[in-house]
Amino acid sequence: MNHNYIIPNKWSIIEEGFDAERVTASESLFSIGNGYMGQRANFEESYSGDTLQGSYIGGIYYPDKTRVGWWKNGYPEYFAKVLNAPNWIGINIKINGQELDLNTSKIDGFYRELNMKEGWLKRSFKATLKNGNQVAVQSIRFLSLSHKEVGVIQYTITPINFSGTIEMTPYLDAGIMNQDTNYDEFFWKILDMHEGKNEASILSETLKTEFRVCTSMKNIFHLNTDEIQLDKQVIKEEKRISYQYQIDLDKGDTLSLFKYAGYTQSMNHPKDELLVTSKKTIDNAIKLGFDNLLERQKQDWAKIWKTADIEIKGDVKAQQAIRFNIFQLNQTYTGEDARLNIGPKGFTGEKYGGSTYWDTEAYCIPFYLSTKDKEVAKNLLLYRYNQLDKAIENAEKLGFKNGAALYPMVTMNGEESHNEWEITFEEIHRNGAMIYAIYNYVNYTGDFDYIPQNGMEVIIAVARFWAQRANFSKAKNLYVILGVTGPNEYENNVNNNWYTNYLAKWCMQYATENMERLQSEYPTDYKRIVDKTNFKESEIFNWKKISSRMYFPHSEKFGVFIQQDGFLDKEIIPVAKLPKTERPINQKWSWDRILRSCYIKQADVLQGMYFFENKFSDTKLQKHFDFYEPLTVHESSLSPCVHSILASKLGMEEKAYEMYLRTARLDLDDYNHEVHEGCHITSMAGTWLSVVQGFGGMRNFDNKLSFNPTIPKEWKSYSFKINYSGAIIQVYKSHEETTFTNLSDTPASIQVNGKEIVLAPAGLVTSK
Amino acid sequence: MNHNYIIPNKWSIIEEGFDAERVTASESLFSIGNGYMGQRANFEESYSGDTLQGSYIGGIYYPDKTRVGWWKNGYPEYFAKVLNAPNWIGINIKINGQELDLNTSKIDGFYRELNMKEGWLKRSFKATLKNGNQVAVQSIRFLSLSHKEVGVIQYTITPINFSGTIEMTPYLDAGIMNQDTNYDEFFWKILDMHEGKNEASILSETLKTEFRVCTSMKNIFHLNTDEIQLDKQVIKEEKRISYQYQIDLDKGDTLSLFKYAGYTQSMNHPKDELLVTSKKTIDNAIKLGFDNLLERQKQDWAKIWKTADIEIKGDVKAQQAIRFNIFQLNQTYTGEDARLNIGPKGFTGEKYGGSTYWDTEAYCIPFYLSTKDKEVAKNLLLYRYNQLDKAIENAEKLGFKNGAALYPMVTMNGEESHNEWEITFEEIHRNGAMIYAIYNYVNYTGDFDYIPQNGMEVIIAVARFWAQRANFSKAKNLYVILGVTGPNEYENNVNNNWYTNYLAKWCMQYATENMERLQSEYPTDYKRIVDKTNFKESEIFNWKKISSRMYFPHSEKFGVFIQQDGFLDKEIIPVAKLPKTERPINQKWSWDRILRSCYIKQADVLQGMYFFENKFSDTKLQKHFDFYEPLTVHESSLSPCVHSILASKLGMEEKAYEMYLRTARLDLDDYNHEVHEGCHITSMAGTWLSVVQGFGGMRNFDNKLSFNPTIPKEWKSYSFKINYSGAIIQVYKSHEETTFTNLSDTPASIQVNGKEIVLAPAGLVTSK
Repeated sequence: MNHNYIIPNKWSIIEEGFDAERVTASESLFSIGNGYMGQRANFEESYSGDTLQGSYIGGIYYPDKTRVGWWKNGYPEYFAKVLNAPNWIGINIKINGQELDLNTSKIDGFYRELNMKEGWLKRSFKATLKNGNQVAVQSIRFLSLSHKEVGVIQYTITPINFSGTIEMTPYLDAGIMNQDTNYDEFFWKILDMHEGKNEASILSETLKTEFRVCTSMKNIFHLNTDEIQLDKQVIKEEKRISYQYQIDLDKGDTLSLFKYAGYTQSMNHPKDELLVTSKKTIDNAIKLGFDNLLERQKQDWAKIWKTADIEIKGDVKAQQAIRFNIFQLNQTYTGEDARLNIGPKGFTGEKYGGSTYWDTEAYCIPFYLSTKDKEVAKNLLLYRYNQLDKAIENAEKLGFKNGAALYPMVTMNGEESHNEWEITFEEIHRNGAMIYAIYNYVNYTGDFDYIPQNGMEVIIAVARFWAQRANFSKAKNLYVILGVTGPNEYENNVNNNWYTNYLAKWCMQYATENMERLQSEYPTDYKRIVDKTNFKESEIFNWKKISSRMYFPHSEKFGVFIQQDGFLDKEIIPVAKLPKTERPINQKWSWDRILRSCYIKQADVLQGMYFFENKFSDTKLQKHFDFYEPLTVHESSLSPCVHSILASKLGMEEKAYEMYLRTARLDLDDYNHEVHEGCHITSMAGTWLSVVQGFGGMRNFDNKLSFNPTIPKEWKSYSFKINYSGAIIQVYKSHEETTFTNLSDTPASIQVNGKEIVLAPAGLVTSK
Repeated sequence: MNHNYIIPNKWSIIEEGFDAERVTASESLFSIGNGYMGQRANFEESYSGDTLQGSYIGGIYYPDKTRVGWWKNGYPEYFAKVLNAPNWIGINIKINGQELDLNTSKIDGFYRELNMKEGWLKRSFKATLKNGNQVAVQSIRFLSLSHKEVGVIQYTITPINFSGTIEMTPYLDAGIMNQDTNYDEFFWKILDMHEGKNEASILSETLKTEFRVCTSMKNIFHLNTDEIQLDKQVIKEEKRISYQYQIDLDKGDTLSLFKYAGYTQSMNHPKDELLVTSKKTIDNAIKLGFDNLLERQKQDWAKIWKTADIEIKGDVKAQQAIRFNIFQLNQTYTGEDARLNIGPKGFTGEKYGGSTYWDTEAYCIPFYLSTKDKEVAKNLLLYRYNQLDKAIENAEKLGFKNGAALYPMVTMNGEESHNEWEITFEEIHRNGAMIYAIYNYVNYTGDFDYIPQNGMEVIIAVARFWAQRANFSKAKNLYVILGVTGPNEYENNVNNNWYTNYLAKWCMQYATENMERLQSEYPTDYKRIVDKTNFKESEIFNWKKISSRMYFPHSEKFGVFIQQDGFLDKEIIPVAKLPKTERPINQKWSWDRILRSCYIKQADVLQGMYFFENKFSDTKLQKHFDFYEPLTVHESSLSPCVHSILASKLGMEEKAYEMYLRTARLDLDDYNHEVHEGCHITSMAGTWLSVVQGFGGMRNFDNKLSFNPTIPKEWKSYSFKINYSGAIIQVYKSHEETTFTNLSDTPASIQVNGKEIVLAPAGLVTSK
């Protein structure tokens, strides 16, 4: 943990001073992205120290052959991975023949800033090379939100203590590999290299998946303020093209390279037009120019912040942290393209393969739903809708029939790509999250039409899965669900996980309700859906039968639902009594010991109560919180947020704040010494939830948006913005007062402490 | 399945006619071994068809890097594998310049025989080469039981339709790899090559483990009946040395090559003397000569059969099968060396890595105990005794303390080398089998001294494990054992597996009993053991407390013990109702479906009742058999034997015979199309048990050997031999009579149908 490394600042992530040990961690933290592509904050110039070069394009993946010790029937043959894409940021620098390398030079005044308000990355430093030459360097880089396929670098260099020759070699390199490969395979093949005046392109294609990508650059030089033309020498290697430019500079002169670059690719353009499109794209960007593009970038980010910002006063670190989380979520996913999703590390690293998990439905959708236009969340739903056929195939592989679907645990294209049987085959509660996300969306937006149009097919397929997956226990005279892993992955292959059973029951009920409503209110859609899904009336009968007779383990003694059948046979010792030397248990204990312990990785029963909070009284919720939270080790970054929200609801303010702190600066302070692998993107949504649903007390059940804000005593005030049916509502809370402001032109109705409040356009309601 | 491929014969395995499709299968079936080394029945001459070259040396292994998709804390870093060792059988043949290759020649009269009575492998055929030359070839090969480091080949060739040049090129090849490697690594490095007159050696060393092996050969030629000298040309390659000899033969002449070869190695000799020792070893063998060595081989096998043979009349296939099983078990393990053990495939293939499993304790020890001197079984016990420190280390890795031991699931040197958490960490019942084997040994041999001398330390360490592994359930007010995999590997991570709980309870009781006995009867040993193991009196108290309050799941309704807590929540549908298309379920179903099904891979509750048969009435046993057997798919080769034995006991003769047939010719008839991977060596012991304990009704509880023979109606008569306290008892059973013969000079006492019978030396008792 390094609390003091990142300089506290309200709007920027700032690093001062160069520390080679921190390079890979900072590469993650200072990552930039625009939803279409993203990259780690690698240096432009060559760097001989420890670094993880990473540049990624949303949706472009490789089916890496599965590595497994002991094959189980039903395992997928591959694990889909976001591919490390060709590097276009590279600019090698030589000063009087000496390579500029931060690892071998003396570095002064190193400063790095990721400006979250405006969406750009800046780096400046002075380097004294081995030959004694000292230069001042500054680079500014951003990935344009308005021109998604374009990134721009302004790289300037000034000799400080000498006059001499500067060599700049901007290049494109397609000879890169994933760090995260199972068999050290190379994933790209090079198809073509194009060489123009100051521009170059490499056309490459992924093996197996055959995504085609054109990586391009164009270089423009300024000497001080004037554009200049420099002769180049072309160096073509098998997978790399470099343009070498030389110039003699006087001491104090500034040479600037504007490198316009980026990717055009076959998900968005015809394959045979990529070279041409790429050239046009870069030329268009150059026509606008660096300053205009940057100005546009600032405007685009201002638009995002308008509906997404959270302002915290009195705690700069908290302010910085929450904006970092909102910023990263927006860098990762912008919501225009239903083929894309939100990988656990976004574009900041390769761990977890960059694929889609149930994190999206359980944690991210509420964030996008509340901070953006509803189309964004809808695109996340459509992503799953479009993969329904694959989910049905996936279920068939596991022996399910008749259109039952099992959504994969991890996926890129709809096919399962994870291969631990206890997760892949048994962590089936994820299937319920798909339906909960639909419910959440419809509930929040009021857009019920999504159900007849798309949602119903998914709901039916999932309900069918549950109906087949449950079995009747003669011993219990009820339906049971055997052999599952709940959200608490520290128990595997358990029977009657309460959360799973609850979600299964609810899914079948929700399917029943909606089919009945469609039959009466949307008869045309109903008929189409019945035909398409080969739906039988008897299925409703079956869903009703199973959901009404589902078994839920419960303890009279403790007055709580039991996480799974065998839970009370365990030795129950609170986490507080576990010696620190034993923590985290996932690093200290063998798997069997974890499994038979009472320790919970992340909210399980409580996750269900969070999802369906309106079904449980506060007394009941409190009982469950008091029973389960003390047994929870929170060794998933998705754990504390749910507990923080529930603690807020229960008025346990200290607990709520303690839980909030555990993820708010998880990456910025590198709690787990793992930020070098990438940032915890999806769990950032959880931190947002802790503020808005937790401290903000925002709820949305039965189509009613309600607020019940509290304030952590450590803060002076905070405010957040919510987009609800087109109205942008700002909730402000200080120790003295609470205000609700409608920032938009649309009137809005909200509930505060159970009372209905109508917010006029641009209206303000104050309460003390 | 190929019922008719192997020619039925009482004493030999015979194959007639050449079928390239069968080569790899026959390579397994015709394997030869002498306990010290073994090899697949590869051809001496080069063969371009599908083949798995395999030659293995007992105890020489390689720690192959673990391949795993998702690492779990506690996994071992490697999987120990028996190494494919340098090939010394190779003899390339050219006829007038044309390579002899069975895959490209026309083959007539192909005949292969593995003579089990005498312990040799013969092969003869006529080959017509592409150049029209026809030759008759015969090879005889054996691995000497008396000279363990030596193997001999007599390879003869006779031109049939031509006179011409024959080139013979015997070679040594150390350039071989395991088929079964995780990362295609080469495991050997070559240290030296020695070239002599007609002799050669390659000194090689295994990487990492640094076993050093000298592979040697010496070639002697006969023309017709006379020894001749031939000039040679030496071909030295990086990892191979070949001697090329040429001779012009007249039609009808016979050229014989006697190739004396084998391994000397650093487990048995100083590393720097291997070359010299190897030369001496080969020279000694040559001094004796081929005929004498072969004669000695026949005598040695006769000795083995004297105490191990089973004779079956009226069913040649059954006779062949049971002798094949006895033969292979003796080829695999001879019992002189406590560093060796019995791999599931013996020396016949590489699958399962050739390591030690609980198969040894549960199935093989009774075989060796009954057919050999007690020292053999004792060496198998000492193998585990010598690895006790490693078992304690292994348990420490999983969080156990104070000298608790967990024996590995799979091992070569005492360290765990398997890496599926549900097996490695949870199939802990294996630990009980270690103690059961000690009990079995002491009970059968009466050699109680083994306990104070060695056994007690193992028993204490295992009892300590169980005491720590069980936990007190407040809900049940009893001790439970959570998160285990029982012998039925089709259930994982279950709670209170009856078999595991039973064995755990028994181990703690057995430890208590023995410690109490040692304290009073062996005070010196007791003190030594207490000091060495840091034993506390309170441990006995603890063992008594836990074992007396162990929980056993039981169903009043069915009147049976329940396999594990959740079993009765499953859908119970007998195997007989499963469509054939769904079988075997381990190939047709995904793992989760198998896990939540009621189908049992191999005896689980019944395995426990088999081990402790004297504790359960026949009525009780029958109830459990009737409940569990119909749910058992017998998809482990270790399953049918236990059921066959119990069915015999219960008078269910047809069921007993049905179960017997399922493994008796498992390999010879290649039921599962997998014999090309090697033979099921350890399960062969199970077949022996089916005959001797099943049909023979042999029991040994409370130090009393009893018999209650029955006869399958398909057989005319059968007999088997048992070595008991030095007496060799032959039990003969026909439909008309039963006789018990004492073949030795020691008097023996046995029980038949509850009546004590004293067999005088060489005495015979007849009953009708």
